[in-house]
Amino acid sequence: MLINTMPRYEILSEEDMATLDKGWRRIVSELGIEFLSDEALDLFRRAGQTVEEQVVKLDPEFVLEQVAKAPREFDLQARNPERTVHLGGQHMVFSAVYGCPFVREGIERREATYADFENLVRLSQAFPQLDSPGGTICEPNDKPLDSRHLDMVYALLTLSDKPFMGSVTSGPNALDTIAMAEMVFGRESLEETPAIISLINVNSPLRYDDRMLAALLEYARAGQPCIVTPFLLMGAMSPVSIPATLAQQMAEALAGIALVQLIRPGCPVVFGSFLSNTDMQSGSPSFGTPESAVGLLCTGQIARSFGIPWRSGGGLTASQSVDAQASYEAMMTMVPTMLAGANFVMHSAGWLESGLVSCYEKFIVDVEILRMLQHQFSPLEISEETLAFSAHDEVRHGGHFLGAVHTLERFRECFYRPLLSSTENYERWNRNGGKDAAARASEVWRKTLDEYEQPPLDDGLREQLKQFVDRRRAELGD
Amino acid sequence: MLINTMPRYEILSEEDMATLDKGWRRIVSELGIEFLSDEALDLFRRAGQTVEEQVVKLDPEFVLEQVAKAPREFDLQARNPERTVHLGGQHMVFSAVYGCPFVREGIERREATYADFENLVRLSQAFPQLDSPGGTICEPNDKPLDSRHLDMVYALLTLSDKPFMGSVTSGPNALDTIAMAEMVFGRESLEETPAIISLINVNSPLRYDDRMLAALLEYARAGQPCIVTPFLLMGAMSPVSIPATLAQQMAEALAGIALVQLIRPGCPVVFGSFLSNTDMQSGSPSFGTPESAVGLLCTGQIARSFGIPWRSGGGLTASQSVDAQASYEAMMTMVPTMLAGANFVMHSAGWLESGLVSCYEKFIVDVEILRMLQHQFSPLEISEETLAFSAHDEVRHGGHFLGAVHTLERFRECFYRPLLSSTENYERWNRNGGKDAAARASEVWRKTLDEYEQPPLDDGLREQLKQFVDRRRAELGD
Repeated sequence: MLINTMPRYEILSEEDMATLDKGWRRIVSELGIEFLSDEALDLFRRAGQTVEEQVVKLDPEFVLEQVAKAPREFDLQARNPERTVHLGGQHMVFSAVYGCPFVREGIERREATYADFENLVRLSQAFPQLDSPGGTICEPNDKPLDSRHLDMVYALLTLSDKPFMGSVTSGPNALDTIAMAEMVFGRESLEETPAIISLINVNSPLRYDDRMLAALLEYARAGQPCIVTPFLLMGAMSPVSIPATLAQQMAEALAGIALVQLIRPGCPVVFGSFLSNTDMQSGSPSFGTPESAVGLLCTGQIARSFGIPWRSGGGLTASQSVDAQASYEAMMTMVPTMLAGANFVMHSAGWLESGLVSCYEKFIVDVEILRMLQHQFSPLEISEETLAFSAHDEVRHGGHFLGAVHTLERFRECFYRPLLSSTENYERWNRNGGKDAAARASEVWRKTLDEYEQPPLDDGLREQLKQFVDRRRAELGD
Repeated sequence: MLINTMPRYEILSEEDMATLDKGWRRIVSELGIEFLSDEALDLFRRAGQTVEEQVVKLDPEFVLEQVAKAPREFDLQARNPERTVHLGGQHMVFSAVYGCPFVREGIERREATYADFENLVRLSQAFPQLDSPGGTICEPNDKPLDSRHLDMVYALLTLSDKPFMGSVTSGPNALDTIAMAEMVFGRESLEETPAIISLINVNSPLRYDDRMLAALLEYARAGQPCIVTPFLLMGAMSPVSIPATLAQQMAEALAGIALVQLIRPGCPVVFGSFLSNTDMQSGSPSFGTPESAVGLLCTGQIARSFGIPWRSGGGLTASQSVDAQASYEAMMTMVPTMLAGANFVMHSAGWLESGLVSCYEKFIVDVEILRMLQHQFSPLEISEETLAFSAHDEVRHGGHFLGAVHTLERFRECFYRPLLSSTENYERWNRNGGKDAAARASEVWRKTLDEYEQPPLDDGLREQLKQFVDRRRAELGD
C-alpha cells in the first residue's frame, strides 16, 4: 500500500466545482435515479424522498446528509494482518484486473478458465506492488455459471492472503461470499472491521439494476464496503461532454452512497469512477484517452470534496496486444490515478483489449509501471546529506562518479531497479534473442509462478471452506 | 505550440529550494567550473571572478546578476512567420529527436544517412504537434564529416519552414549556420529576433569543452539563443543522488548562462536539463526512470525561480525496439515534461535505444503521445452549456446517448481522434492482419511521407544556399 504524500494535481477552480455541484443537484432532483429494487425504493420512500414508479427524485441536501454518515477512511482487513489495507486519505490500494471473459498468453487468446483464475491470483499474491488480487480476475468459464462465485472466493481466500473483492452477481451470491469470509475472519471481527470490498456498477445512465442492488443490500447490511461506480463511456452511457459526465457521475454515485447509508448508517463505502469515452468513429469503447485522464483528475478533486474514499481504474487500454499502444494508454490512466491520489485502484495489472482480456504479459508490464510510479510518488529527501558535496569534491571537473566513494557506498540501492525493462546495448540484446518487453514479460510471469509459495492456511479452515463450496454447489444444482 | 494553462506540478518545498540553493552556490564558489576556452576565461577574469588555471570560481551573487540580464521570454522566428514560436511562460515548443548515429525502420537498424535526415525533417514538418524538426535529427553518416553541418542546415531550411537548431560542433560551423540563416532571414531581422536555437551540452561534471564553447561564443555574439544543458546521467556524470544532481545542474547551467550574458548582455538563453541515471547493474544509461521523472518536475520549478525559459527531454527510452517499454518509458518523461511545463522540449519524437537510434515507427508513436497530451493539457470548459442537461433530460434512465441530439450535433469533434491507436474489436483487428502499434506506425509514416509537400521557398534563395554549401564544402576540403 502506497502512502502518496506527493501533492494532488487539481485542475478545477472553485467556480468549476460550483457549476458541477449545480449539475448533479439538478439531475437527482429533477430527473431522479431509477432503482430496480422494491427494498431500495421503500427505504427512500420512508426517508421522505419522492418515488415515482421506480424513479426516486432526491433532495440534494438529504443526499449530502446521508453521504456525511459514511466514514472518511477505514481499514479493510486481510487474512494475513500484515496485508490489511487502509482506504482513504493519502493511502492508495492497488488491485488486479477484474471481469475479463478471455485471457491472453503470448499470442494465444482464449476463453479464460479456472486454472487462469488461480494463476492470476497467484501472480497478484506474488507482487508486493499489488495490495489485492481484486475479485473476478478473469471469468472461470469452465466452472458452472451458478456456482462459480464459490470457486472464485475459494481461490481468493486460499491462494492469496491479501484483501479480496466479493461476488456481486446476486444477493445470494453476496451472502455466500459473506459466509465464507465469516469462516476465515469470524463474524465478530468481520462486523468490527470489514474484509470484503465489492464492485457495484451503476447501469448508467441513472439506473441501478436489481442484481447489483440485491448484492449491495447484503453487503451494506453486513457492514462491508461497496465501491459504487457509475459505468460511464461518454457517448454511450453519458453525454459527449466531460462536465456533463462528471455531474452524472456525482448524481449516480452519491445516490448509491446515500442508499448504503439508509441501509446501515456509517457503513464504509467508496465513490467509484469508471469514466472513458466511445470512439465515435468505430462505436467501440476507448481507454487511456485524454478525456479519461482529465476525468480522473477531476474525479479525485470531486470525491475529496465529499470526504469519501474513491476508486479509479488502473492500466486501461483498448489495444489488442501487448504493444506500444497498450503501455502508453495504460500510462494515460495510471499517471493521472497517481496524481489524483485514487484510494482504491482497480485493474492495476493485466487489463487488455478494453477489459475483455486478462493478459499475463500485460500483467507484468503493468507491475513494472506500478513499481516505477510507486517509486516516483515517494518523497524526495533534500538535505545536506543528499547534496553529497563530498562526491563533487572528490570527482571535481570532467571526471566520473562511477568509482566515487559516495557511489560505491550506495550503488545497489540508489536507483529504481527494473523488473522488466532492459538497458542492454543493442549487440548484447540482439545476441540474447532480441526479445521485446512482451517476450521478456512472458519469462517473468512464468518464473514468478514457478517460485510462487502458497500463503499458510489452517487445514481445518481450508476443509471447511471446501465443504461449504461443495454443499452450496449441490444446493445450486451445479 | 501549446500554451499550457494547466497548473504546474511542483514537489519542492521552500526549504527544499533553499537547500538546493546552498548546494549550487557552494559548488560554483568552492569547486568552480572549468572552461576550456581562453576567451571564456578572459571574460570571467575581466568580470572580477577568480580564475585558477582553467577553473573559474564564481561568486554566486555575480552569477545571479548575470542571469538576471537574460530575457524571461523571447520569440524564435521561423521562415514561415506563422510558425514562429515563443519561448517562456506557459508556452511549450516541441522538437524532434537529436543526435542519433543510427536509424531504425521496422526491424532494420542501420547507420543513418542523409536520405534519412531528409525524411525525418519531412515528417517533422508534416505533423503540427511538432514545432521544430530540431537539428541533428540523425547523423548523415554518408556525408563528409567536416561539411555535413552544411547539408543538415540546408535540409532544415529547405524541407521545413519551422524554426531549426544550429550546428554546435565548432565555432566555424556555428558561423556557417549563422551565414545561411542570414541569407534566409536577413541580418537585421536575425539581429532583431533570433532564428537559430542551439544545444550546448556541458561536459559534466563541471566542465565546458572547447568546441561547445566556441559555438556558444559565436551564437551569443550573434544574439542567437543557446540551450545550456548539463549532461547528467547520475552515477556517471553526477552523484547517485537527485538533490546533488539538481545542485550540480544549477551550478553548471547558471555558470554557462552567466557566460552568455558576459558575451552579450540580454542575449536570450535557455536553462537546459538532460537528467537521467545509469543502470548500476549494467553500467548503461537508463531513460524514462522514476528518477528522471522526479528530476524533470524539480527542474521546472528551479528554472522558473530564476526566470529563464527551460528545456527538457521528451519521449526518452532505453528500449531497443518499439515495444511496451519504449512507450511506458517515453510517457515517464513526457508526462512530467507537461506537468512541469518545459518551454522547449527536445527529443519529442523518434528517440529510441538511449538516443542512439532515430526510429521512424517510434516517431509516430511519439506523435500520438504528443497529440494526446496536448489535448489533455488544454483547458476544460465547465459551464451551463457543457453540463448538457438537455441530453440527460432527453435520455433519462437506462437509455443510451448515441442517438441523442446533443451527441449528433457534436460527435465529430467531441473527443480526441487518434492517429495510431486502434479500438477495433479483436475479430476485426485480427482479420485486418493483427497489426500492432509498431506495424501500424510504419504505415502512418510512409503515408505521411507520400503526402508530404515541400514548403515554398524562393528559387533564388535556394540556389544561394546551395552555392554557399558547395563553396564552403570545397573550402573545407570535402
